[in-house]
Formats: sequence, structure tokens, C-alpha cells
Amino acid sequence: MMIIMQANATPQQVEHVIEHIKAAGLAVHLSQGLEATIIGAIGETHNLPMEQFEGLDGVDIVQRITQPYKLASRQFHPEDSLIPVDGFHVGGDEIAIIAGPCSVESRSQIIETAIAVKEAGASALRGGVFKPRTSPYSFQGLGEEGLEYLAEARAQTGLPIVAEIMSQVQVDLMVKYVDVLQVGARNMQNFNLLRVIGETRTAVLLKRGMSATVEELLMSAEYILAGGNARVMLCERGIRTFETSTRNTTDINAIPVLKKLTHLPVILDPSHATGHVDYVAAIARAAIAAGADGLIIEVHPDPAHAVSDGKQSLRPEAFAAMVKQVGQIAQIMGRKLAAAEAYQPLKQGWA
Amino acid sequence: MMIIMQANATPQQVEHVIEHIKAAGLAVHLSQGLEATIIGAIGETHNLPMEQFEGLDGVDIVQRITQPYKLASRQFHPEDSLIPVDGFHVGGDEIAIIAGPCSVESRSQIIETAIAVKEAGASALRGGVFKPRTSPYSFQGLGEEGLEYLAEARAQTGLPIVAEIMSQVQVDLMVKYVDVLQVGARNMQNFNLLRVIGETRTAVLLKRGMSATVEELLMSAEYILAGGNARVMLCERGIRTFETSTRNTTDINAIPVLKKLTHLPVILDPSHATGHVDYVAAIARAAIAAGADGLIIEVHPDPAHAVSDGKQSLRPEAFAAMVKQVGQIAQIMGRKLAAAEAYQPLKQGWA
Amino acid sequence: MMIIMQANATPQQVEHVIEHIKAAGLAVHLSQGLEATIIGAIGETHNLPMEQFEGLDGVDIVQRITQPYKLASRQFHPEDSLIPVDGFHVGGDEIAIIAGPCSVESRSQIIETAIAVKEAGASALRGGVFKPRTSPYSFQGLGEEGLEYLAEARAQTGLPIVAEIMSQVQVDLMVKYVDVLQVGARNMQNFNLLRVIGETRTAVLLKRGMSATVEELLMSAEYILAGGNARVMLCERGIRTFETSTRNTTDINAIPVLKKLTHLPVILDPSHATGHVDYVAAIARAAIAAGADGLIIEVHPDPAHAVSDGKQSLRPEAFAAMVKQVGQIAQIMGRKLAAAEAYQPLKQGWA
Amino acid sequence: MMIIMQANATPQQVEHVIEHIKAAGLAVHLSQGLEATIIGAIGETHNLPMEQFEGLDGVDIVQRITQPYKLASRQFHPEDSLIPVDGFHVGGDEIAIIAGPCSVESRSQIIETAIAVKEAGASALRGGVFKPRTSPYSFQGLGEEGLEYLAEARAQTGLPIVAEIMSQVQVDLMVKYVDVLQVGARNMQNFNLLRVIGETRTAVLLKRGMSATVEELLMSAEYILAGGNARVMLCERGIRTFETSTRNTTDINAIPVLKKLTHLPVILDPSHATGHVDYVAAIARAAIAAGADGLIIEVHPDPAHAVSDGKQSLRPEAFAAMVKQVGQIAQIMGRKLAAAEAYQPLKQGWA
Repeated sequence: MMIIMQANATPQQVEHVIEHIKAAGLAVHLSQGLEATIIGAIGETHNLPMEQFEGLDGVDIVQRITQPYKLASRQFHPEDSLIPVDGFHVGGDEIAIIAGPCSVESRSQIIETAIAVKEAGASALRGGVFKPRTSPYSFQGLGEEGLEYLAEARAQTGLPIVAEIMSQVQVDLMVKYVDVLQVGARNMQNFNLLRVIGETRTAVLLKRGMSATVEELLMSAEYILAGGNARVMLCERGIRTFETSTRNTTDINAIPVLKKLTHLPVILDPSHATGHVDYVAAIARAAIAAGADGLIIEVHPDPAHAVSDGKQSLRPEAFAAMVKQVGQIAQIMGRKLAAAEAYQPLKQGWA
Repeated sequence: MMIIMQANATPQQVEHVIEHIKAAGLAVHLSQGLEATIIGAIGETHNLPMEQFEGLDGVDIVQRITQPYKLASRQFHPEDSLIPVDGFHVGGDEIAIIAGPCSVESRSQIIETAIAVKEAGASALRGGVFKPRTSPYSFQGLGEEGLEYLAEARAQTGLPIVAEIMSQVQVDLMVKYVDVLQVGARNMQNFNLLRVIGETRTAVLLKRGMSATVEELLMSAEYILAGGNARVMLCERGIRTFETSTRNTTDINAIPVLKKLTHLPVILDPSHATGHVDYVAAIARAAIAAGADGLIIEVHPDPAHAVSDGKQSLRPEAFAAMVKQVGQIAQIMGRKLAAAEAYQPLKQGWA
Repeated sequence: MMIIMQANATPQQVEHVIEHIKAAGLAVHLSQGLEATIIGAIGETHNLPMEQFEGLDGVDIVQRITQPYKLASRQFHPEDSLIPVDGFHVGGDEIAIIAGPCSVESRSQIIETAIAVKEAGASALRGGVFKPRTSPYSFQGLGEEGLEYLAEARAQTGLPIVAEIMSQVQVDLMVKYVDVLQVGARNMQNFNLLRVIGETRTAVLLKRGMSATVEELLMSAEYILAGGNARVMLCERGIRTFETSTRNTTDINAIPVLKKLTHLPVILDPSHATGHVDYVAAIARAAIAAGADGLIIEVHPDPAHAVSDGKQSLRPEAFAAMVKQVGQIAQIMGRKLAAAEAYQPLKQGWA
Repeated sequence: MMIIMQANATPQQVEHVIEHIKAAGLAVHLSQGLEATIIGAIGETHNLPMEQFEGLDGVDIVQRITQPYKLASRQFHPEDSLIPVDGFHVGGDEIAIIAGPCSVESRSQIIETAIAVKEAGASALRGGVFKPRTSPYSFQGLGEEGLEYLAEARAQTGLPIVAEIMSQVQVDLMVKYVDVLQVGARNMQNFNLLRVIGETRTAVLLKRGMSATVEELLMSAEYILAGGNARVMLCERGIRTFETSTRNTTDINAIPVLKKLTHLPVILDPSHATGHVDYVAAIARAAIAAGADGLIIEVHPDPAHAVSDGKQSLRPEAFAAMVKQVGQIAQIMGRKLAAAEAYQPLKQGWA
């Protein structure tokens, strides 16, 4: 960390900053130039809040040199992490395709969808049972009943299941049922939830908040990693910008940026990132071409009657066509689509 | 709600939309123009998800006419809500000034600050005991110990206390101690938390998410109101934009917009909205001039040694000067600063 | 256009709106429902400013049904436009790759680069001679001298040339030299410039402003088309958002959105859209996978000595590797890379 | 300027950066710490493009210490600039209120408005004669005819006139007629236009681009100042964000930020910054409370029949009420409203 002092900073102010650095257990490297005095703080600075130094008198600019996260960083862990998910791994040469409805609505709906997406080439099944809805008057999900339907769909198809967790009080229930815990965009900085998930050994799909920076996404991953749970996958799902022709703006840049900064796999969600069924396949192809490790896609057998997100849900046939195109792009990227095998649960759950 | 069909929509598609509207218990008003068929849905539509209709075949545009919230709406409740907070009311002609440190750090720190802000004219005391920190390595707050210090500060000064709640599992503890539950920006859409708070009768300061629209803020308020807790105050604290010269961009427009849309009081947080002590007083004055009902301000007796947010914390003397200016603006607006009396707790807590 | 009146609008206000519509030469379709009165304006509404109606008393919402542009719209012109550029066409099955330095710096630099990008598979040469620089103290371009070097590079390689025009007073000069006039992001709404370009018959590469919506981009294209110049190509070059890990945020969604709304070709500029050489190839691949009709890429023989944009300029070898990958993706999309032939200027210039 | 090298930068790369700095005529201060090598560039760095250094091999971070603008900077010019405008000065203790219609529509309309705003307390008259319209089909302004009407309105009321210039080819015409040249948001980075205006001695109102940073606004001011024209006033008019409840988001923070960074006066335009007549007065009051030096407000005698911006135009009576409130806030800020005297043109025009 470099602290650049204001041009008119007094020697006392410089001394004061140095004391602060030493108090944090760091070494000091002082450089007094003609235009500016620069104070370097040397040692483990990733756990040091920059704003503490920004508030000191005489300080002009505080500039990090090392990243504020460590376990998530590629500097600390250069090789790609491979996250095992029932018979395949995310983060290597296999492309994971997670598909299913926004909400689990009924036993027949989820089983029908699971069979259809399996046939079309999906490697995992998604379905929400606790729904974070903007309106208190909207459908809030089937809860545990939905989890039972998901488990039944898994038993029939062999597809591992991915479902969203909304609160720390749901962790016990969720780890009993699901293969991958999804943390939604609105909970990316629900730090209490992240901490509890860090204590489990269940794989996690951590979605980027709609106005979170790439760095903040990695800091949230760090919360989970710091708890000892290394099975973290990141998910770009579109950010909020001024553009209104799509629900969100897919930050496609985030894929190569994340692949450079971190060893964790990166998944893209073109359904939420575009919000419209007409654009999902194009953005799914783009994601794989940009280097993403997988996709999560909303598929519904009857979008017109979906209780949520019908506008952005593919019909199974459209999904199958998309999978074919994605498979071709994957091949050019030297990769292949992951295939779920007969379901054999990993040792997950609590640490 | 108006549904505008695509120019080439078939009669079957129109019929299908009409069935959907009727199935939702609404009346239908059909208007077939030369350029477009428009289907009106008449009745209680605030609890109807628009996206369900956007997904139907042949639909071009779905346009709400009434707002998606009801209890929070000024249409439903035309007069300003007055929220009682120990001896004064927020939302009428009294301007509330909530002040204190970002974090409760020690018994002496919070008591010293409480006395200083009381003298300077504050009407309530803020202080965080559970801290939502971006980094898992940062100070996370004193927890219940901090609440006890806050209570002691209240006993000495008579200032009611405001503290942030981060999780539904903290509600029991928090309602025992605090006068106002603060819901932070990162939890504005933590719907499980909002629902539990809706079951209490403790006043709430609901902060706008950093990329939440004004409408989403009101939808989150609706969650609390729908639970029966009418003591909701809204808080603008800056939104995230491309501009980096300040920590956030104060959405000053949101003040008159909210005052028009809702009867709930509107507070502004110039500390987070600017992120820098040099700009706090200017934005505090602007807020009151724009019609805000109060302010929440970070004040620290020794910002250089604050464990968090030192850069944006006023020293007590600077705070006192700011209160004086704000009081003058309040007068022009036909209002006055609220004064906390000898502390007499309201009947709050669980419903 | 649909005008939804406020619930409490008076008959006089409704009448007043109707008069306005009739005065604009449009027919009226009135629908009086229980909850709202809706007034439809029927006829040529693309040239009608919505805000004029929004200002009328009693009006709640003004909702367009048809788009505010016409010549640029796919409704008006369903087939893809093919823009001829010396020996190939942009917008069909050929993918155009425009490459070259940010600025023309010297005769040798631009000729060396032209030869290198031609060998690597580029179909056109770019190079700035008038540079829109944020700082008045930065290099502002070689002007006409640079155009002569570009023409010489074209003569040697057969590559048609693309250069940015900054002002209406440069049109005469520019159309004499270049094959494609580039309108930069900062000039997307320089309407005087657009109007003059509309009077030429030279092909145009119109870049999206950094905070322009897709609709505004199409409105700017409409200015040129309305002047009679149909040779318009659109260019996504990244938008400004809160994310700072890249220079801009590539709005990859804009590619399928534009392909749906308009018949004009869509080019992507991954150099400006990412701002960093490490991310250019990934985003170039993504663009073609998403359906883009071409790319414009910054290439410099010695990026470390480039007078501008060195950080985002590919070396020729890296560019050649990128072209190979892009060619493979193009094949999957059923397309191929365009090849420039021996230069035979089109009949362009003034109408 | 500080250049922080990557941890694994080679001595050759360090040497290469040093050569670049020396080639730019700057002195070098080298600091080799344990974690990072930092190279300081000392001297006149405001005219040095940072990106040139960011592109060099081995460079990690380039951090400015001094600002990239000089003439606009308060460091260079500590006292507030006073810009003379016919009988009053902007930037001192006088608050300028510029008012008038979006477009000059007719002789009678502009004269009627001028008289009304003068009576209500305006200090200058605005009115557009060249209109930057998103649509080529919208009213584009009366041109020189409009300027003559403005001059006539000035003759009758004594109010100096402010009108927008859209292109460098209009400068001769405009400086003949107007007292203040307005540069619109879409032209903030029309550098050719800025340069020509820099050669005049006519006062300028430079509006911030809708996605321009505060720093970019100051860089554009620098273009004009560098030409020798010191009569520059800055104007905040709202920025583009995700929030859609108002036309733009007023960046009220920009007022104290600009007042700290620059000596140039700062005006706020609440009409464009909110886009709705209901919010104009609140934001006008807020601006003055935050320290703005003036306001520019759209006023129209009959907003319902305005050819543009009717939705955000105040009726003269509402404007008069607003001026009264603003005057009271100004008094608290130790200021007063500027009053235009009998018109006596300043020596302006070309240098």
C-alpha cells in the first residue's frame, strides 16, 4: 500500500501515518521526493482497510498495490480451481450448463423440465424454492416442498441440483438437499449468510450483485473461502446501467477480467443478464467464446404460464438448439460440455 | 395495467392475455385501435407481477398505471406519516438529526460522542454494533456489548438510539435495545429480514440500496408495512454511478420525488452519500432545502483513529457548525430542529 | 402513441390533448376505461416529440408504440443492409476486420502497420488524423499529412481506409481521402456533423456515445439516413458504468438488440470497450459469437511508443492470432472473414 | 506522477520507463521498496497522457499526484474567478439566475417571457436558437431570426442573453449577438468547438456532459482557458444513471467538489437535471444551499404549447415563487441575487 501525502503535509502528519502503519504490524518504506512524500506499507496488507488511512490528516491518496483479497487471488493460487459437482468438474475443460425454471412450481413441472433439459444436454438442474421477490405480493416459492420435488427430479435424471439460499436460517435445510447453493445477486453482500456458507463444504454459485464491482465480488468470495469452503463458483448475471433495452447489461468484460484475477470458475447467466428470450442464445455463445466455464439458463416447459421470469425463459426446444451452438463454440475453445453421470452425491454439507 | 399487443398479434393471443387477466381476478377493458390492440386490466393490480404478462405471446409493452406498492403510496395515504421517536416525531415540522460514529468502538468513545452530539443539537444517536464490511478481515463490530454501551449513552443523554440490524436472527436482541432499527443499503432487498421487521413495532430507518431505484425502495418499505409495522422512515444515502470524485452520488432528486410518491418521512445521509468530510455540510444543507425530514451524520471524536469511515466522519465542532447552518435552512422551510427530551421509551418491540 | 391520462384528469384536459394530436395531423382513438382514459394517436408518430405531450395538463404517461426512428428500423426495411466497402460488403456473410493504430504518427508507422495487418487478415485499415483528446495538451493528430500517409498505405496494400471526422468543416477534406468516415463516440450527437455527412455518399462508421442508449444511437443513424446517405454502420464501443476494472463496459447485449431493431450492420470495437490488450481477443471472439458483422481493432507495431492508446493496442502477432480465432468462430456462425481486393474506389463523396 | 511497477518487473523495464519520463522533459525519483519499485515523474505533468505510461511493459499502476488540468485548478489560481456579465459578476456574492424558454419560438413569446422573468427577479435571459434534438424530425430552432428576437428582448428588459452554440461555424454569428455562449452537454467534448470559443473573449456557460466526470468537465474548461478566454462558468445539469424516476440525476455533490477543485463559478440547471416541473424549485433551493453560484431555469409562458421541454418548464408565477425561496437561501449563505442593470455590453467577441 502506498500513501501519497498532500504537498503541504507537515512532518508531524507524516510521522502520524508512519505510526499507524507500524501499529498495524507493517514495515514502512519512506520516500521523500520533490513533489510528494510517499509512504509504503509493506507486509500483509490485504486485510487492512484503506479508508482508515484515507481519514488521516495530510493524506492525499491511498493506493493499493496488492489486492484486498488473498484466497480468491490468482497470485496466491495460480492454477485454476476445479470444483467437483457430481461426476464432472467446473473450471477445467468441461463447460457446465445449469438449466431449469426460475421457480419450482409443482412436482410435474420440475420433473418434466429436468427430463427435457437433460435430453437437451444440461449438466445440472436449477430451480428456486425461496424466491427473492421485489414485491411482497408476489409468489415467494414452495420452500421445503420444492426441495423434495427437486430431489425427485434429480433421482430420475441424475442431474445435480442448484437452488438459491436466501437466509442463514435456511442453511441446514438447504445443504441437506442441494448440490450447489446459489447466492443471489441481492445477497452477494449478506455477510452473515456468506460466513455460514463458509462453514459448510457444499459448492456455491455466488452471483454478482447488480451494482457490485468485480473486486467486491471477489471480496464476497473471500468471505466464503476464509471459512474453509473452497468450492466457490462466480456468476456474472448482468449489471445495472442506464441502458433500458435489456433488463441488465451483461458485463462480458468481467469474464476475461475474472479469469485473470482469480482461479475460481466463472459462470454466466444470460437469462437475467438480458431479460429476454430473444437474446439468450447470442449471449450464451458470447460467454463461452469469451472464456466462461459454464452457463446458467432459465428453461420452462410453458413460459407463458410461468409464475416468474416467463419473459426470459427458453422453451426446451430453443434451449436444445442453444446447447448445440454452445457446444460448437466450446470445441473451438478446446473444451467440451460436461455430462452429468448417474447421481452419486459428493461428501458435502457441513465441514 | 395496460397491455399493448404487438401489431401482428393474433386474435388467439389477445384472447389468451384476456384469460390471464381474468384468472387474476381482474376486469378487462379491450380497446382495438387501428395501430394497436390495448387490453386494460382493472382492479387491484399492485400485487400483480408485470413480467408474467410480458412473457405472453403477442405482447409488446406492459405499462403500469397504478403503482406496484399500495401501503407506501401517497394515493392510498395522502397525509404525511408522523413517526414517533422518543419525544419528537419524524415527518412533520421537526427535522431529526441523527448523529454518531460509524462503529461503536468502546464505552468511552460512544458516551463521549453522545454527549458531544447532544450538545451540538442532535436529536438521536447512531452507532453500529454489527458492521457489514466488504472484507472478511475488517472489524465486524462489538455486537451486544456495543448495544449495552449505546443504552448507557442513551441513559446519560436522553438521546434515542439508532443501530443497524444485519440479519433476521438479530431481531430479538435488537428490538430489546434500540429505538430505531437501521436496515443498511446492502440489506434493502434482504426480504427475509424485512418481513421479520414488519412483525415488530419498532421504528425502522430503511436505507436505499446503492443501485436501487426509488420504486424498489418503496417496494421494500411495502414489505415492512405489509407486516403491520407502519413506523418506516426512508433514507437516501447516495447511489452508485460512474463518477468517482465522491464515494457515491447523492440522488438529491429522490427527496422531492419520494415526498410526492409516499407519505413516509425521508432522511438523507450526507456522510455515505459523499464519503468525504469536506462535502458533508454542503449536502446536509442541500437536503433540508430540498425538503428532507432529517439527516443521519457520522461524527467521531477522533476521526483519525476511527476503526471505520474516518474519512467521512465529522469532528464534533464541525458537526456543531453544520447543525447551526441546517437549523437556519430549516427555519426558511418553516421547520425546526427536533429536540430529544428526557428519554421515555415508546411502546415498541414485537407486535 | 398512447397517452394515459391521470386518474383525476378533467374532460377539458382530455379535450386539450385530443386537439394537440389532431393539430399534429394524427387521428385519435379514445378509450375511456374505469381506471384511466387512454388516448391513442394514430399515424406517422415517429417524428412527434413525446415530451410535448408529457407537458400537457392531466397527462400521466406517454407511451410510444412505434419507434421514434423509421429509416433505421427493421420494420421499415426488413432485410439486412449490405454496405459496400471496396471489394467486400459489410452486413452480409462477410465479417469485416478493420485494424490499425489509434493515431497516424508517421509515414513509416502507418505503412508498416498496414502491411502487417493485411498479412494478418485485416480487411480495412484504420488510423486517426484528427484526434479528440480529453486534454488540450495531448497530441491532436497529423491532419491532412496523415491522410496522405493513409492513402499511400492503401495504395500499397489495397486496404480501404477508415478515419475519424471531428467537425463539419473537415467533411470536404475527409471525403476526398477516406473510404469510411468514422464518427467518434463524443460526436454521436453532434447533429450538425451528422447532417452534413448525410449529404455525402461516403460510408460511415457511427460509434455509440459512451452513455447513449441503443435508441439514441439509432436516432443518430436516422439523421444520416434522412439526408440520403444509406451507407451507415453502427459501432458498439463500450459504455460508461460504475465498473472500473476495464476502461468501459462492453454492452454485448447491444449486438443482438441492434440486429433485431435495425437492418444496419453492427461492428464492435473491443479495444475501446475494454481498454486493455489482455482482454481484446476474448471480447472480439464474443462479439462474433453474439452476431456482430465486424470488428475494429487497435494495432500498433510498437505499443510502448504509441502516442495514444498504447495500453489497448495489440502487437501485429497478437492481432494475427486473434484473427485466426475470430475466423473459426465466424465459420460456426456460417460466415467468413472479408478480404480486401486490389483497391478500386467506390463512387462515394458528395451526393 | 507515480508509476508503480509490477512485482516481477525487470530492471530493463524499469530503465525503459525512466527513459520515457526523461524524454518527456521530467525529472525522475526512483524508490525501490521491498514490494514494489515506484518511479516518480517530477515537473509539469498535467500535460502528460497517463495512458502512454500505462502501456509500457512492466507497469502496474500509474497514479497522478497533480491534476491533469492547470488553468482551471484552484491550486494554480486560489481565489474565486469573477466572471463579468453586464452589470453583475458571477462567482462572487451575487447569485445569477438565468431564465427563459428552451427554444425561442417567436418574437412575442421571447419578449413576453423576458419581461416576465425580469419582473420575477431573473438576472439574465436564456433561449435556444440552434437546438440539438435527438430526432432529425424535431424542431431545430429559428437560427439568426431567433437571435434578433433575443436581442430585441434584451433591449426591452436590459437582461443579458445566453444562447447555445452547436458548431464552430456558428461562432461569428453568435458572438455578435449573445452575452454568454452556452456549450451544451452533447458538445462538452466537441474539442474543435471549445478551441474556437477559447479564441473569443465572450463569456461561456460550459455544461457537463451527461456521462462526463467532474475531471473531464474541468479538462474541457481547460481547452477554453488555454485559448486565452478566462470567462468560463461551469454548469451541472444532471448525469445519466440507472434511476428513471427523473430525466437525469442531479449530481449535487459536484457543487462542493467543483468549488474545491476550481476557481470557476458553478451554475446548476435544475430543469434538465430533474426533467419535471414538480421538482425544479426543490433542486434550485438545494443548489444554492450547497454553494452554487447561480441557476439556469426553463420558464415558458405557456408550457403546454412549448415546442420543446414543456414538461420541465415553469410558468412565470411558479418561477417567481421559486426566486423568492432561492433569495432567502442565498441570504443565509451570505449572498444575494444578482440584478441586471440597464444593458451595457461588455467588450467581448473575438480576442
